[in-house]
Amino acid sequence: MPTQRQADPSAGTGSRIDARTQRSRATVLAAATDLLESTGVGGFSVDEVARRSGVAKTTIYRHWPTREALVLDACAGLDDRYDLPDTGTLHGDLRTFVADLVRMVEQAGWAAVLPSIVDAAERNAAFADMHAQIQKGHASLVSQIAERAIGRGELPAETDTALLASTVLGPVFYRRWFSREPFDAAFIDAVTTRAIRGAQGSD
Amino acid sequence: MPTQRQADPSAGTGSRIDARTQRSRATVLAAATDLLESTGVGGFSVDEVARRSGVAKTTIYRHWPTREALVLDACAGLDDRYDLPDTGTLHGDLRTFVADLVRMVEQAGWAAVLPSIVDAAERNAAFADMHAQIQKGHASLVSQIAERAIGRGELPAETDTALLASTVLGPVFYRRWFSREPFDAAFIDAVTTRAIRGAQGSD
Repeated sequence: MPTQRQADPSAGTGSRIDARTQRSRATVLAAATDLLESTGVGGFSVDEVARRSGVAKTTIYRHWPTREALVLDACAGLDDRYDLPDTGTLHGDLRTFVADLVRMVEQAGWAAVLPSIVDAAERNAAFADMHAQIQKGHASLVSQIAERAIGRGELPAETDTALLASTVLGPVFYRRWFSREPFDAAFIDAVTTRAIRGAQGSD
Repeated sequence: MPTQRQADPSAGTGSRIDARTQRSRATVLAAATDLLESTGVGGFSVDEVARRSGVAKTTIYRHWPTREALVLDACAGLDDRYDLPDTGTLHGDLRTFVADLVRMVEQAGWAAVLPSIVDAAERNAAFADMHAQIQKGHASLVSQIAERAIGRGELPAETDTALLASTVLGPVFYRRWFSREPFDAAFIDAVTTRAIRGAQGSD
């Protein structure tokens, strides 16, 4: 899921976990993320992660006590670091963001997994929490673009950024996961223009 | 899923299936639809349908050769017949439709199941076909509202109704399944007004 690039907080802190354990964890997580991309949350099994990674199930369960804990960590591995555009105009920023988002929902591994997370979130609090985090990340990208535009006087100070996020992310997500119609530049332009027009006009 | 009311094509055609078989089919389907509402596609099992309905698994498999066939039929049972509003104005029709849709995605049994169908559609052609049918039903409700508005001169004849559907359904679906923010009248008003403004302006 697109989140902003951040420094890795664990880097260079002299972790006490020994190197071999760390390598085995990384191998398991990489296999788990690959598996998740092909099966979604529903088809994910620790047996298959063990088979793919060559790491014994007992070892896997030492690090992740439950299937759910491993799925949740594997979801974090789907992260798609993203540099927010800064073109100097609301239209430029939003057009670039929508085009980048379209490319990601069409191509990124997490795009095939997200519906299974949304489904799991309907019934499971841990997945609901994780989905809320992913979602906050998406919405905050739109909010940051909006706040810069407010600073430049391109949007009114009282702009409802949550509503703006609904009108930007909603049509893109709808087309990817619901209508499954192809994306094109005209769609990207129209979503951008209509979201801006909506936020600038009074309802 | 909201679809328009239609006469039942099987009513009064003197079906040859005997009454007891029909009752047992109906019992199984009702149990399957209930189960689907609580588990989604992923957690659905024929064992559990047999337990809940009191109908033997062998009998169930005589009617539905696979778990998937039964899930697909049970999904059809989630149908939510819907009378399209006809208020005489685009704003009236669309405002009523968006409010009805919000009520359905908040309360209807199918709303908790749809993400599992979307997920299954990522990997399974039969579910992808079924999801496409559901989706066409949703989009056609917006198209019919738009076509009446074109007829009254409220929208340009060249209106892109698929794009209009994205800007109406997208924000509602986004808020229900992605951001999970509460719905309120202000949101319903804003989605209605912005979708109309978007379709009336030139991009």
